[in-house]
Amino acid sequence: QGILERLDAGEIVIGDGGFVFALEKRGYVKAGPWTPEATVEHPEAVRQLHREFLRAGSNVLQTFTFYASEDKLENRGNYVAEKISGQKVNEAACDIAREVANEGDALVAGGVSQTPSYLSCKDKAEVKAVFRKQLDVFMKKNVDFLIAEYFEHVEEAVWAVEVLKESGKPVAATMCIGPEGDMHGVPPGQCAVQLVKSGASIVGVNCHFDPDTCLKTVKLMKEGLQAAKLKAHLMSQPLAFHTPDCGKQGFIDLPEFPFGLEPRIATRWDIQTYARKAYDLGIRYIGGCCGFEPYHVRAIAEELAHERGFLPEASEKHGSWGDSLSMHTKPWVRARARKEYWENLKPASGRPYCSSMSKPDDWGVTKGGKELMQQKEATSEQQLKELFQKRK
Amino acid sequence: QGILERLDAGEIVIGDGGFVFALEKRGYVKAGPWTPEATVEHPEAVRQLHREFLRAGSNVLQTFTFYASEDKLENRGNYVAEKISGQKVNEAACDIAREVANEGDALVAGGVSQTPSYLSCKDKAEVKAVFRKQLDVFMKKNVDFLIAEYFEHVEEAVWAVEVLKESGKPVAATMCIGPEGDMHGVPPGQCAVQLVKSGASIVGVNCHFDPDTCLKTVKLMKEGLQAAKLKAHLMSQPLAFHTPDCGKQGFIDLPEFPFGLEPRIATRWDIQTYARKAYDLGIRYIGGCCGFEPYHVRAIAEELAHERGFLPEASEKHGSWGDSLSMHTKPWVRARARKEYWENLKPASGRPYCSSMSKPDDWGVTKGGKELMQQKEATSEQQLKELFQKRK
Amino acid sequence: QGILERLDAGEIVIGDGGFVFALEKRGYVKAGPWTPEATVEHPEAVRQLHREFLRAGSNVLQTFTFYASEDKLENRGNYVAEKISGQKVNEAACDIAREVANEGDALVAGGVSQTPSYLSCKDKAEVKAVFRKQLDVFMKKNVDFLIAEYFEHVEEAVWAVEVLKESGKPVAATMCIGPEGDMHGVPPGQCAVQLVKSGASIVGVNCHFDPDTCLKTVKLMKEGLQAAKLKAHLMSQPLAFHTPDCGKQGFIDLPEFPFGLEPRIATRWDIQTYARKAYDLGIRYIGGCCGFEPYHVRAIAEELAHERGFLPEASEKHGSWGDSLSMHTKPWVRARARKEYWENLKPASGRPYCSSMSKPDDWGVTKGGKELMQQKEATSEQQLKELFQKRK
Amino acid sequence: QGILERLDAGEIVIGDGGFVFALEKRGYVKAGPWTPEATVEHPEAVRQLHREFLRAGSNVLQTFTFYASEDKLENRGNYVAEKISGQKVNEAACDIAREVANEGDALVAGGVSQTPSYLSCKDKAEVKAVFRKQLDVFMKKNVDFLIAEYFEHVEEAVWAVEVLKESGKPVAATMCIGPEGDMHGVPPGQCAVQLVKSGASIVGVNCHFDPDTCLKTVKLMKEGLQAAKLKAHLMSQPLAFHTPDCGKQGFIDLPEFPFGLEPRIATRWDIQTYARKAYDLGIRYIGGCCGFEPYHVRAIAEELAHERGFLPEASEKHGSWGDSLSMHTKPWVRARARKEYWENLKPASGRPYCSSMSKPDDWGVTKGGKELMQQKEATSEQQLKELFQKRK
Repeated sequence: QGILERLDAGEIVIGDGGFVFALEKRGYVKAGPWTPEATVEHPEAVRQLHREFLRAGSNVLQTFTFYASEDKLENRGNYVAEKISGQKVNEAACDIAREVANEGDALVAGGVSQTPSYLSCKDKAEVKAVFRKQLDVFMKKNVDFLIAEYFEHVEEAVWAVEVLKESGKPVAATMCIGPEGDMHGVPPGQCAVQLVKSGASIVGVNCHFDPDTCLKTVKLMKEGLQAAKLKAHLMSQPLAFHTPDCGKQGFIDLPEFPFGLEPRIATRWDIQTYARKAYDLGIRYIGGCCGFEPYHVRAIAEELAHERGFLPEASEKHGSWGDSLSMHTKPWVRARARKEYWENLKPASGRPYCSSMSKPDDWGVTKGGKELMQQKEATSEQQLKELFQKRK
Repeated sequence: QGILERLDAGEIVIGDGGFVFALEKRGYVKAGPWTPEATVEHPEAVRQLHREFLRAGSNVLQTFTFYASEDKLENRGNYVAEKISGQKVNEAACDIAREVANEGDALVAGGVSQTPSYLSCKDKAEVKAVFRKQLDVFMKKNVDFLIAEYFEHVEEAVWAVEVLKESGKPVAATMCIGPEGDMHGVPPGQCAVQLVKSGASIVGVNCHFDPDTCLKTVKLMKEGLQAAKLKAHLMSQPLAFHTPDCGKQGFIDLPEFPFGLEPRIATRWDIQTYARKAYDLGIRYIGGCCGFEPYHVRAIAEELAHERGFLPEASEKHGSWGDSLSMHTKPWVRARARKEYWENLKPASGRPYCSSMSKPDDWGVTKGGKELMQQKEATSEQQLKELFQKRK
Repeated sequence: QGILERLDAGEIVIGDGGFVFALEKRGYVKAGPWTPEATVEHPEAVRQLHREFLRAGSNVLQTFTFYASEDKLENRGNYVAEKISGQKVNEAACDIAREVANEGDALVAGGVSQTPSYLSCKDKAEVKAVFRKQLDVFMKKNVDFLIAEYFEHVEEAVWAVEVLKESGKPVAATMCIGPEGDMHGVPPGQCAVQLVKSGASIVGVNCHFDPDTCLKTVKLMKEGLQAAKLKAHLMSQPLAFHTPDCGKQGFIDLPEFPFGLEPRIATRWDIQTYARKAYDLGIRYIGGCCGFEPYHVRAIAEELAHERGFLPEASEKHGSWGDSLSMHTKPWVRARARKEYWENLKPASGRPYCSSMSKPDDWGVTKGGKELMQQKEATSEQQLKELFQKRK
Repeated sequence: QGILERLDAGEIVIGDGGFVFALEKRGYVKAGPWTPEATVEHPEAVRQLHREFLRAGSNVLQTFTFYASEDKLENRGNYVAEKISGQKVNEAACDIAREVANEGDALVAGGVSQTPSYLSCKDKAEVKAVFRKQLDVFMKKNVDFLIAEYFEHVEEAVWAVEVLKESGKPVAATMCIGPEGDMHGVPPGQCAVQLVKSGASIVGVNCHFDPDTCLKTVKLMKEGLQAAKLKAHLMSQPLAFHTPDCGKQGFIDLPEFPFGLEPRIATRWDIQTYARKAYDLGIRYIGGCCGFEPYHVRAIAEELAHERGFLPEASEKHGSWGDSLSMHTKPWVRARARKEYWENLKPASGRPYCSSMSKPDDWGVTKGGKELMQQKEATSEQQLKELFQKRK
């Protein structure tokens, strides 16, 4: 059954977790560029991660094509790895996802994300051409549906949805925005409306913020759609990091990004809480983004096991709510084998010289749109090349 | 070259990380029993983790035989998975480790750890027989050297070393103790002396405490050996969790163990600091235990790259000290591409409702040795079976 | 010169600090009732505190008549101290304040605050009669101006202002509300408008929230007045406690209220920051409430010394920005004798087992106004008497 | 009855709190010099603080003669206030203490503390002459007994005790050391032995460390005395600040000293815990030092009310364990009127951007005694004068 059939039937669809962060820790993705050339270089590593998410309960395997547009690979990938064509990266990603999906009953979703072309003010036709190139691969490899994700500008997200809609396949669209809205100040409710009007059947948010913040944003989207009398399925794929101290642009501005985020990592119980809240809000496509490891996805599946009627395969290696501790040799550890214990635990950091919150870095928040952003960010290929030369 | 040739020549030997914790998060090991039946059930997952550690710089791949003694598998494994013989588990572990070791230049080490037989007061011959069964597999599979690790009682560790020494292969021995010494109060220096006298060529600590605490313990071992005019190589494989608030029995007594330890996870920079301190203390076998993921091992290899003369393969996907951020689109993120930034960062937890330290759980610290411990812990097979019945 | 002459001339007027909290710690006020019978029982203690605030720079000495309405003294004071008439308490308060004011150039302000009569739904005439009784004393003792403070309901505050206005003296009015507005949901801007329309020449907030929150609220009041084209002087007298985690009803709902607030106490530097921000916002009557000790008031006076042209008397015993440490015997303590040091210090709590924020207690936030509140709170004399009986 | 009669009879003697810190906040003492010229300049302020401690339960009023030796007043006082002779300061201190003591049944204790003469290596005769000058005043004013307090070097403390013993009055001696011992490394047990052998009838510690640390130190003193078969009464007057992160030299090295210590202030409940622990350890002279306000002393008296048989006067304005909240209008505040609540409360700091512990400042810990210390500290009059000139 396709994604819309499942959602229309009221099923809960569980997404997967964040590939770039998980594979960075495993040694296959470079932080900074965050590009997915591992699909070609180390397919076994990508395959294994897909498999772990599948076992954990994911109903959708997203092709590992984040930042896999030709323009991104060119201005990043050039410098970090031997040149591999975008087409090869995208094709390999589709093949690996399908191979693992066939080990279970998961769907394969082809994904596109924000492009340097948009940020460097290329025009609509140029930007759409970039998306279309990825879409060509997805169509050739016959993915089950499409996701436009990680967009900070609703304008670019709409362009992406318009391109993906050309395929005739179902399209989901998620933005990496918080309750304050997109980088031009378009509020979440309006973003959702624009995305649905462009053809998205599923809308929501992914990345940049923690579960609580993401749910607030999706709630605003839901209200926006209701006010506009539009219907769409809701989706959330937040960080597995606690970020109550984020500013408008999310966790990238936190001083800990990306190499000091460990103390913020969500526990499996935090994720169970998230899954429950997401469900109660009416979200039926529930997954994760950066920081989500397989056991976080399993936590979603376990929290909603009653609603779904079954546990995922990986739960064979996990007792519900710490149940597996009930045979521990120490009685005070056995006493942790119960829901109340883990639900109420406020885990200490073991870091008495660290604070609990940080002030986000920010050299001026973007208000004037693309033009202003251009001045502050060195995103064009030329600028990056110059910057790179200076480093040598 | 063998382990002793390398260490005798002054080489730094990098260990690997903690399999039970890493594979628990990936969905292949059950917390509580912590047994390694994944070697038989999901060899591809174990193989992939070995490979990641190899790429990260590990010179030793330990067979995934933690808690793989027959007595442990029986009183734990029976209840958590279909019955798989200990021999099959140990053999598969050796095969997988060797297969991946051959992809690089790593050594394979066969490992034994503490047994329920000892805790339930079986006699010396019985306990030794348990170790000997595992050793038979290691000899048949011809591992390169042997490790007796994760012992809380020096008496049991000595018995293990004596058995392993029968093989003629080099033996390393690490205890999971802190500066206060073993569970009978034998101080670290004396533990080290006993282990070396029993035949261990490499001694140190693993698990239960954070890097700083482990280094304190190894320092005490070093001083004990010097006082006794004994020579041995030093080894440390600590947790990748911050545990300044641990009591004598280590992180198991912390309220966060094992499902709420996330805020305590060490950053890569914490591990670089650890690697440097370990090196300065004269430790030349430097690895990790629970919590160590491949990127933590890479951090050891990167910190000591100058001393070793080379970087590990996985550093291709990692810039030294955040270097890979130097092309980020946001200038304030580019400003993080330097050593001083990450060295001085005190990472926030994002958890303002949590404290920084916890009081360890403890229903009475063991002072009177095995007899007292028996009363407090339900370790015998019979007791566990009864306990299990009650749960149903 | 009177209060309005000073403010109209652009002078900064410095208020005093919180008497009930300061005198509770000194042993003269009972937490819970918070009544000011000390004016009769221990005038020397009240006098000394007035004197300390005067030396610290206060331009206004408020009569210690908080909760000194007859109805309050009756339903509280009856049970906590021998019966002293409200008239005696109010008269003594006026005499002491005037005596100390004459030691410098301070003004004496007579103050009224919220009443049990209002909370127990007495009608307008009855509530006004309560205020009028206190006003009679203030007129007889000829205070310089009047303050209606610590009102949670704008309706009651307006009634108080109307009564005080009958005197012909200048009236200031401050509410103990946050940015969310009064207990019936009237936003701060509207509260300010109503108060000015009733006759208040000075409006603002006092108590219940920390300086940052109070300044946000005053800013909303300022904007409300501007929108309504009304003119008034602005005033703020916040807590000297950090309360970023407060809910709508302020610090009373924090679990630490009132006996565990120590870790939240503001440093003198926090208060200098507050004074600067208040000044920059256009507030010219700048004082404090609960938690403000004399050295906090001195911090206001020191921060604004340049604008005012002079230092307070107590600065003879204080070096600006830690200056007095420049002769310390330890060089690293001498290094603290500078503004940058104290401005940037993030003071540690010394409490590693405590968190940095708390969840406010709250058994249901009041939404439906007085009626609902009545059900939840035992405020009527009858209820309190019954409650008191049960305790015995 | 004298101090020894009371202690010999098994009575609990409650000390007072810290005058320099309390009066600094009230505006009468300058941080840095910390000298007590307020006894002459503002006797009413000193009198009022004595009175508050008396009401709170203090059985001893210490003359406010801290740092009142001529040499100290000269090299500090000269620069911070108009010149007042040491004799006048000491005499006024005695008069005020006696006046207030007569309002109750308290004893007056004359106190001496460490001198610049010792630190600048003056010889024994010279240092003793300094103490003798203060003692002359104490004898003339006929104080009840004598205290040598706040000594970091046992040698100087012994000299002080020897001088005070010449009077024939009982002598108490407390050092401001922690478990590591005095600045020359003499352990607490040996310090206690030397002090008792020199003539002190009461020994212990004061200042520099929090209650828990002080109790550890007194325990070591007790054990030292027992081992030496010496008898003496035990005394403790710790800080009312949490300082688990202190180094050897105590809270002065903490970055927060002295103007950012607020988050470390002990609650009344912390002090009740301290009083109980001190009592259980056999300490019978229980008081406080810097940070102790009257309500902290009252907490000692309330915790030990059962043992002493009565409550102090100030308890009239305080309900035991929050009892006074039982009539609060909000039910959730009434729920705080019980011991369990306050005993278990872990109070939040309201400072999410601050850590819970600090690293002490320290530019090299003193190991070689006076000579080394001299090089690091600018303590001689000449050095201080030069330093002062530079500032101008």
